[in-house]
Formats: sequence, C-alpha cells, structure tokens
Amino acid sequence: MNLLLLDSRDYIGADLVRIEGRRHQHLREVIKAEPGKLCKAGLLNGAIGTAEVLELSSQYTVLRTKLEMPAPPPLPVTLIVALPRPLTLRKVLHASVSMGVKEIWFIGGRKVEKSYWSSSVLKSEELEENCRLALEQSGDTIMPRLEFRRQFKPFVEDDLPQIRADRPVYVGHPTATEQVPQGISSSVVLIVGPEGGFTDYEIGLLESNGVIPIALGHRALRTEVAVPALLAILTTHCI
Amino acid sequence: MNLLLLDSRDYIGADLVRIEGRRHQHLREVIKAEPGKLCKAGLLNGAIGTAEVLELSSQYTVLRTKLEMPAPPPLPVTLIVALPRPLTLRKVLHASVSMGVKEIWFIGGRKVEKSYWSSSVLKSEELEENCRLALEQSGDTIMPRLEFRRQFKPFVEDDLPQIRADRPVYVGHPTATEQVPQGISSSVVLIVGPEGGFTDYEIGLLESNGVIPIALGHRALRTEVAVPALLAILTTHCI
Repeated sequence: MNLLLLDSRDYIGADLVRIEGRRHQHLREVIKAEPGKLCKAGLLNGAIGTAEVLELSSQYTVLRTKLEMPAPPPLPVTLIVALPRPLTLRKVLHASVSMGVKEIWFIGGRKVEKSYWSSSVLKSEELEENCRLALEQSGDTIMPRLEFRRQFKPFVEDDLPQIRADRPVYVGHPTATEQVPQGISSSVVLIVGPEGGFTDYEIGLLESNGVIPIALGHRALRTEVAVPALLAILTTHCI
Repeated sequence: MNLLLLDSRDYIGADLVRIEGRRHQHLREVIKAEPGKLCKAGLLNGAIGTAEVLELSSQYTVLRTKLEMPAPPPLPVTLIVALPRPLTLRKVLHASVSMGVKEIWFIGGRKVEKSYWSSSVLKSEELEENCRLALEQSGDTIMPRLEFRRQFKPFVEDDLPQIRADRPVYVGHPTATEQVPQGISSSVVLIVGPEGGFTDYEIGLLESNGVIPIALGHRALRTEVAVPALLAILTTHCI
C-alpha cells in the first residue's frame, strides 16, 4: 500500500477520516504508524496528498488529510483482452491498472473457455477490490472503467468502432511482421488475445476492421507477462 | 506448454523419446494429441524442432524427434533482483526466463526479509521446475544460470565487478532522473530492488560502484510487473 485510498464515506469531518478493516490493519501492522506519522493518501476518483495519523487504536485509525494534488496522468491506452482464466485475470488487472490503464474491455473468443465467464473473480465487488489494491500500489486514485463482452463478432463490429474513435488499434499477434510501436505520443487501443492466440478467422475479422497486428517477438508469453511488456514499450515516456 | 521440453534421459533410441508424468498428461489431456500429431519440441540445453506422436497410452507417450534448429537467442540482459517474497519470486522467475534472460542473481538487502531465504521455492528442484515451465512457455531450451547472494555489500563489491565486465549496469529507482534506455544494442546488467526500494545507503553504494539509477516512471509497480516492463523497454528489438 503506497497510497492510503480513501472513500467519501471514510470522512467524519471536513478533513478528518476514520478507517477500519484492511487499511487500518495495514497502517498498524505493516507500516507501524503512530500519531504524527504522515502517509501518502488520496480520495477515490479525487486528489492525492498526505494524511497525518492523529489517533490509532486496535480498531481504527483517525487521520487528518491534505489532498491538493491531481492523481498521476493515466496511460493513454485502452486495453482489450480476451478473458483469461481467473487467476490470470487478477494478475492482468493488477498489472494494467497499476500501470495507469483507465479503460479495460474483456472479451470472448474461440479460445476463451466458457467457464471463465462464471468465475467469482468477475463479481463487481471482487473486481473493485482488485482495482483498489492496484491503485494503492501505484499511488493513483482514479478507478478504471471495466467492460465485458462475451461475443467476439458483435464486439468487433459494434463496440470497437466506438471505442477506437480515430485512434490506431493494435493486436498483439506472434506472427505479425510489424513490431510494437515505441513510445507513442497519442492514445491507442491495444488488443491482447487468449493464451492460445486468436484464430485465423478472428485475426482476419480484426484486420478487416482496421486493426494492425504487431509482434512482441518470437516468444510466446503468458498474458500477465505480455500485457506489462506491451504497455511498457508502447508508452515508454508516460508510465 | 508451447514446446515439449525433453531431457536426454527421455531418449529410448536415436530419435525416439518416451515421456510420462506431467508432460505426457498435458499432451494427452490438454493438447489431446493422437498418433501422427506434430508438436514443437526441444532438448534441454539443445536444439529445437518437432516431435511426432507415435504411440500414446494412458501411461506414456512415444514420439519421434527431429531437432535441427537452434534455441531462440537469449535476451542480452543479466538480471539482479533483491530476493522477493516466495510467490513473487515464482512470478519474477517465470517472467524473466520466459522473456529469455539467461543469468539471474537474487540478492539480499535491508528490505529483504530474512524468512524469504528459507522458502521452499528456493530449493533447487523447485527452481528448476519453474525454469522448465517458463522455457516450455516461450519455446526455449536453454536453462538459465541462477545465483543467490545474501549479503548486499560483498555482492556489490566482489561479485558485481565480475558480472558486469565492461557492460553498463542500471538500477531501477523511482526517484532517478534518467529514463530507461530503449532498445539497447549490446548486453547490459539490470538491478531491481525490493518492493520498498533500496535504501539510500544501498543506492549510494551502487552508485559509487558505477551503477546508473534509471526510473520507469512515477508509479510504484510490483516487482513482477516492473521486471517485464523494464526488460521490454530495454530490449525492444530482441524479445
């Protein structure tokens, strides 16, 4: 927890918050905070700054906040990922949210197993908790937008045109001849396939909708490794 | 498993292998291989090519190999990582080995908890199994060299000069003013600190030994996210 992420419901006064549960335990047991200690803090979807510990009991911590700085800039990438297995989903979500991605679409496809759609990881409270942990890790406060589309073709034909607007759209594909663009200066859309890759039909449909295949190299990487690697190369100057 | 990684002890003839256990189960249950099926295969620390399934029983698979191509080129980076907690170690090992790193040193430091050194993940058979899985993932056969040094100062003063030879050495450090070099053309050494960062003393010792601090950006990332991101930017052209 590199930032204490506050909720409006934590406030008990104009600049006073009282927190319990996980965040309180972390302050008490990991950070070993004591009255007077200054922590980095931020308000969910709001400003960041500091919070000074005023009181710390076994049950709760009271802090005075001074939140005057904007959250760090978002990564200029909209991410679209073929829904991975639940454990991988958590890792991909953590990697992309902690790197600053603010819009993530999880989509279906030929090699996306049906069972993945009924995983408890997809419950909204689970997703929100995972996003909060990633924001706390990276010192950010802005919750990303998460969307889910189970049908590949309607997604590509109906949703993608609206998502992309005028931006370039890239799809990571091991046999592509084009390399990953480095250090983009404006916003892009990045599509990452399932572990077995998109099928020829799927890649064809993406290409006929103006999506550009790019290759990270000849090695097949797990999704949770490929996503931070692709995001890092694309956005070198903005992470 | 994108490559069936073979051992010399799997051979039952000049080009015939018989495999049991995990790899056999994977061929049978995940890949649903049948006689005639061609798989990508490689010999540990040797060539890659194909293996044709000749016989597949409930207990074992027999395949005929044709291994004539070299393993993919290694990533020109020696990685040095402050020993992370066991679960993170597995993720970092997977990420770096699947990206092609062939020499990894895990080192101690002020913020490396003593208990990490007694984790079962550090047992040599566990480490080897993890490396094999990463090689199978990325279609490689060359086992990396793993080294462990518990004492930071002797490592920096005695081991690092020999590891680096004439190469530049970078250390990821959030407050560094220099950015990560992009698309290096020759081999480098990359040092990644513990989750709380190296202490001022440790960074000072590294700097006085010629190590250059570089920053990935302003966000604090988990080690398993920072490592693939840093490796990807450094080596854009070689992954």
